[in-house]
Amino acid sequence: MNRGATEDQIGAVTSKIQSFGLDANISRGTERTVIGAIGDERKLDPEMFDSLSGVEYSMHIVKQYKIVSRESHRQDSIIDVGGIPVGGTQVQVIGGPCSVETQEQMDSAAQHVGAAGCKLMRGGAFKPRTSPYTFQGNGEEGLKMFRKAADKYKLRIVTELMDARMLDTFLRYDVDVIQIGTRSMQNFELLKEVGRINKPVILKRGMSATVSEWLMAAEYIAAGGNHNIIFCERGIRTFETAYRNVMDVTCIPVLKKETHLPVIVDPSHAGGKAWMVPALARAAIAAGADGLLVETHPNPCEAWCDADQALNPQEFQDLMGSLRGIAEVIGRNL
Amino acid sequence: MNRGATEDQIGAVTSKIQSFGLDANISRGTERTVIGAIGDERKLDPEMFDSLSGVEYSMHIVKQYKIVSRESHRQDSIIDVGGIPVGGTQVQVIGGPCSVETQEQMDSAAQHVGAAGCKLMRGGAFKPRTSPYTFQGNGEEGLKMFRKAADKYKLRIVTELMDARMLDTFLRYDVDVIQIGTRSMQNFELLKEVGRINKPVILKRGMSATVSEWLMAAEYIAAGGNHNIIFCERGIRTFETAYRNVMDVTCIPVLKKETHLPVIVDPSHAGGKAWMVPALARAAIAAGADGLLVETHPNPCEAWCDADQALNPQEFQDLMGSLRGIAEVIGRNL
Amino acid sequence: MNRGATEDQIGAVTSKIQSFGLDANISRGTERTVIGAIGDERKLDPEMFDSLSGVEYSMHIVKQYKIVSRESHRQDSIIDVGGIPVGGTQVQVIGGPCSVETQEQMDSAAQHVGAAGCKLMRGGAFKPRTSPYTFQGNGEEGLKMFRKAADKYKLRIVTELMDARMLDTFLRYDVDVIQIGTRSMQNFELLKEVGRINKPVILKRGMSATVSEWLMAAEYIAAGGNHNIIFCERGIRTFETAYRNVMDVTCIPVLKKETHLPVIVDPSHAGGKAWMVPALARAAIAAGADGLLVETHPNPCEAWCDADQALNPQEFQDLMGSLRGIAEVIGRNL
Amino acid sequence: MNRGATEDQIGAVTSKIQSFGLDANISRGTERTVIGAIGDERKLDPEMFDSLSGVEYSMHIVKQYKIVSRESHRQDSIIDVGGIPVGGTQVQVIGGPCSVETQEQMDSAAQHVGAAGCKLMRGGAFKPRTSPYTFQGNGEEGLKMFRKAADKYKLRIVTELMDARMLDTFLRYDVDVIQIGTRSMQNFELLKEVGRINKPVILKRGMSATVSEWLMAAEYIAAGGNHNIIFCERGIRTFETAYRNVMDVTCIPVLKKETHLPVIVDPSHAGGKAWMVPALARAAIAAGADGLLVETHPNPCEAWCDADQALNPQEFQDLMGSLRGIAEVIGRNL
Repeated sequence: MNRGATEDQIGAVTSKIQSFGLDANISRGTERTVIGAIGDERKLDPEMFDSLSGVEYSMHIVKQYKIVSRESHRQDSIIDVGGIPVGGTQVQVIGGPCSVETQEQMDSAAQHVGAAGCKLMRGGAFKPRTSPYTFQGNGEEGLKMFRKAADKYKLRIVTELMDARMLDTFLRYDVDVIQIGTRSMQNFELLKEVGRINKPVILKRGMSATVSEWLMAAEYIAAGGNHNIIFCERGIRTFETAYRNVMDVTCIPVLKKETHLPVIVDPSHAGGKAWMVPALARAAIAAGADGLLVETHPNPCEAWCDADQALNPQEFQDLMGSLRGIAEVIGRNL
Repeated sequence: MNRGATEDQIGAVTSKIQSFGLDANISRGTERTVIGAIGDERKLDPEMFDSLSGVEYSMHIVKQYKIVSRESHRQDSIIDVGGIPVGGTQVQVIGGPCSVETQEQMDSAAQHVGAAGCKLMRGGAFKPRTSPYTFQGNGEEGLKMFRKAADKYKLRIVTELMDARMLDTFLRYDVDVIQIGTRSMQNFELLKEVGRINKPVILKRGMSATVSEWLMAAEYIAAGGNHNIIFCERGIRTFETAYRNVMDVTCIPVLKKETHLPVIVDPSHAGGKAWMVPALARAAIAAGADGLLVETHPNPCEAWCDADQALNPQEFQDLMGSLRGIAEVIGRNL
Repeated sequence: MNRGATEDQIGAVTSKIQSFGLDANISRGTERTVIGAIGDERKLDPEMFDSLSGVEYSMHIVKQYKIVSRESHRQDSIIDVGGIPVGGTQVQVIGGPCSVETQEQMDSAAQHVGAAGCKLMRGGAFKPRTSPYTFQGNGEEGLKMFRKAADKYKLRIVTELMDARMLDTFLRYDVDVIQIGTRSMQNFELLKEVGRINKPVILKRGMSATVSEWLMAAEYIAAGGNHNIIFCERGIRTFETAYRNVMDVTCIPVLKKETHLPVIVDPSHAGGKAWMVPALARAAIAAGADGLLVETHPNPCEAWCDADQALNPQEFQDLMGSLRGIAEVIGRNL
Repeated sequence: MNRGATEDQIGAVTSKIQSFGLDANISRGTERTVIGAIGDERKLDPEMFDSLSGVEYSMHIVKQYKIVSRESHRQDSIIDVGGIPVGGTQVQVIGGPCSVETQEQMDSAAQHVGAAGCKLMRGGAFKPRTSPYTFQGNGEEGLKMFRKAADKYKLRIVTELMDARMLDTFLRYDVDVIQIGTRSMQNFELLKEVGRINKPVILKRGMSATVSEWLMAAEYIAAGGNHNIIFCERGIRTFETAYRNVMDVTCIPVLKKETHLPVIVDPSHAGGKAWMVPALARAAIAAGADGLLVETHPNPCEAWCDADQALNPQEFQDLMGSLRGIAEVIGRNL
């Protein structure tokens, strides 16, 4: 309450709390009176109280997310992707090109991704692009090529869903992990749709989403019944212009504390340049990430998009080696 | 090019530019060589060049947006909303509650919004909410109530579309202006859909979208054929925690320079508190905005959402008075 | 406290609060226990408690600033600058060039600044520059030229102090208002020095300082005995690259609520381009600012620094006219 | 140049470039004309050109920093701190408490820091604090205690200088490494002072400084003749409120590319909580940092400041073990 709040004002707040079936605890300090709501405060919205007179501000003490919270589920969850575990002691690197270009490119990529030891592969058939005039992905044709190439090398596939109307198509091609991109993290209708199916979902962090908003976005999926959620940090937007985004390693230990779900990192989109990827990938694993999404292309100079951030097959394989070493230092394996 | 780039590297860049049908201009400085592409560089993607060896970085000189740019259309565009102009010398204030609650509330709101001199009214039937456990709007029933209330007072209606699958419903209730919310600014599939129809669109700025990304999002709509676009600044996300967002007044003169389309401001969502709204609303008009989206509710303390940011009818009417004064000082009317 | 905090942990926190002479209020909710400290909590540091086991987090309820707070002094303070009031109903525009270049330039600038109706003039003798290789100001010689030019036109002078060791020199030239620049907002030793003298101080906001940190910086000055403090917003750093800074108009009503001291705005440094200045200046006054710092130069194209952000004499005079109109609409004069 | 710039406008820019002794290269595209300056463009300031008519914008192609740049010195520099190398294959961890409290605390800290294998120790005698009402450090008395404790265990000392007037005192106690804190990164007068002496300097990144501004701040020191500079990343300010700062690992590979000087990281101030420090410390080393500044205290719960971010002796020693493992994986030792 404001300094000098009256008894009537205090009473009004107390009544409003009680009208929702909670109790009120009144603590009178020397300068301020603080009123606490006792009960399930998720029913209350702070803004209901901010508009009452005499209220300085109001806030939640209990977190708004439930199903995804570590409090509701103490052990680490391991997500099963067609028999491949994400989470737990095993670290999973998901390699592949930015976009599905041709069958030949995908076959070649699947071959080198598998050879480097990966069990999952990434690739975009539908691409969110800032400009309407640039390549938007191969669409359904791309899904078909991706599925075919991955099957040949026994890889599970990860690809981005941008539009709820395409979900059936994704299921038809048996996409193993549905990726929700950074621009869709708060596309609540899309989150509700993937919450209704039983497929693992990689939920990328919005480019300027707080950890709390990200957890709430996951809660949207979980609330629909789908608890197979993998968080993916991909760099946040800051004032810095020397690189595309700032990869936020701090979110890794913080998420590990707040949620039982696995956390992976995309160092390729974070840095935006292939030469930065090995340093960032190593940092993510050292900080405790459960896996990575890494762009790698059979021939980066000829990639149709994000050419400057893909590793070539040799760089990718070298990176896998040093990641294996770091994983072992912290008691994991890759 | 990097310092010490070789002639072969310079040649490779030059060839790549020429392979897209453009010419190359090579400028050799004392420390760096700069290569310029001459022709329609929108065909080129800087990342195609960043991956070539010897390249330090590459960038666009020409802007990526065309239809929405001031260069393509010198005069200010005036958007016609059922006979009401947005843009030009007239300033339009669009008042109304955060969400459609009941028919009675909407009737009362429409009455006081119209009485204050507004021609357009706002209200949300579908609400994007951070938590899946809070009120999500009245949906189609809300559209019906809104339409009915607005018709009684001859007001045009503005309401948010979150899902392409609801577009037909919006058209059925003859929504006058479709609002694309901050979280949907880069929902490219949704932008393409509203690009195909012939209805005015208010495009809110993403909460951390650059002006350039915002113009590109508008270009997605325009590229589909719908040029009836109104930009709406609603506060950006920064490090500051004392208020919800930072209302960016600088974007007003900058957009006026870059685009011919109207620019309005939402001071209610920017500040997040009703007591800040008059100062912010006045600042927006003084900076040259073509209008405002202002939350006002017949009884803010009982609003179902964002209760603490709505003006009551008297506050709203008082604000209209001072805005009229400011509009006149800068040669406009309201 | 964490969910599941033990009675011993609750007891330890309670004891620690009591050891500082305060009382503890314990509120046991269904999911969390909240412990409040009752008494002058400025003696406590939240981090003292965050390190105790069982504590989830701790925070201040009462604000850390006292002397500068609106709670300690209800009326608006008016700062007396050699007989000229800053704060109150009068709006003060402080015009002048970025840097003191020559006597001739300063005489010419003082003439046009005075002619436009200003009572105070700005100009830098010591310039903080990002690069060590660019012009760093004329130093003491510049102060002398500035004083001479200002005296001729009966203007008070405002100039930046970067180094405590130069304070005596500033006093010798009888600088009327000492400006603390954005990079010095948390130069605590410098703040303490200007806190010991009895001269008005303009305290610019750090380029990414929160309002709370800014108020605390002012509290450093006030704690030394100098209460003649004027806040100056000059744009904050964000992700946006289309303009130098984002002028934060929201801080104006917020500061007016939190502090009794005057608030001015520098639209020139905020936007960084002369063509943006009129819109930003009008927005600042409309939002309730008590004045402005505006760069104006007799011949902007020949200015030695920040050439692209200075208004020429005619533009400056035109701006004064429209500002006067806006001031009147909101019950002030200029 | 703007679209439609006239020949006269192009001529004026060309003349201005030539008046500084450089040549101009004119490249006429289909939509824009681009003018390049050929010669040492550090003499030119883009803002000199932005104010000319017909100019859209101007920018530097060559970087503004020279002495600190990798281009001027290809090999990694190793800074000699009283016989201990910073930079090169050896990784240095600098442990110690936030502030110097008592002789006993410092003796105890020096003992455990040395026992863990460190060669350098940190500790603050002068503390920059946001509030004037909190503990400001023990000052000169603190330096004396620190020196004494460090000498007993043969440790080099690192401590923060906030005020140029204290430099002589620092030299008198033979401080081995002078730390310039985040709030002083652009205190140019202080940078010039430490540029005149021959002591290693740790230059912390400003809390919202770009990499480019940071390199320019180092250039201020280097331009004075002192090339013994160590960069220290300590977390940047963003929109995220779940942790104090965001530790920017991306700056490590970027600085390694741009400068020959060593780069260390302070994971304690970045995260702000002791439980986050191990993950962040490991990430920094994995990303290629040359060392760390880590807060550790004999008894964190009784620390006088930042109690919640210091590791206890056991945690510190455990961390050293895992860091050693990671260093070895990437070919370094600790």
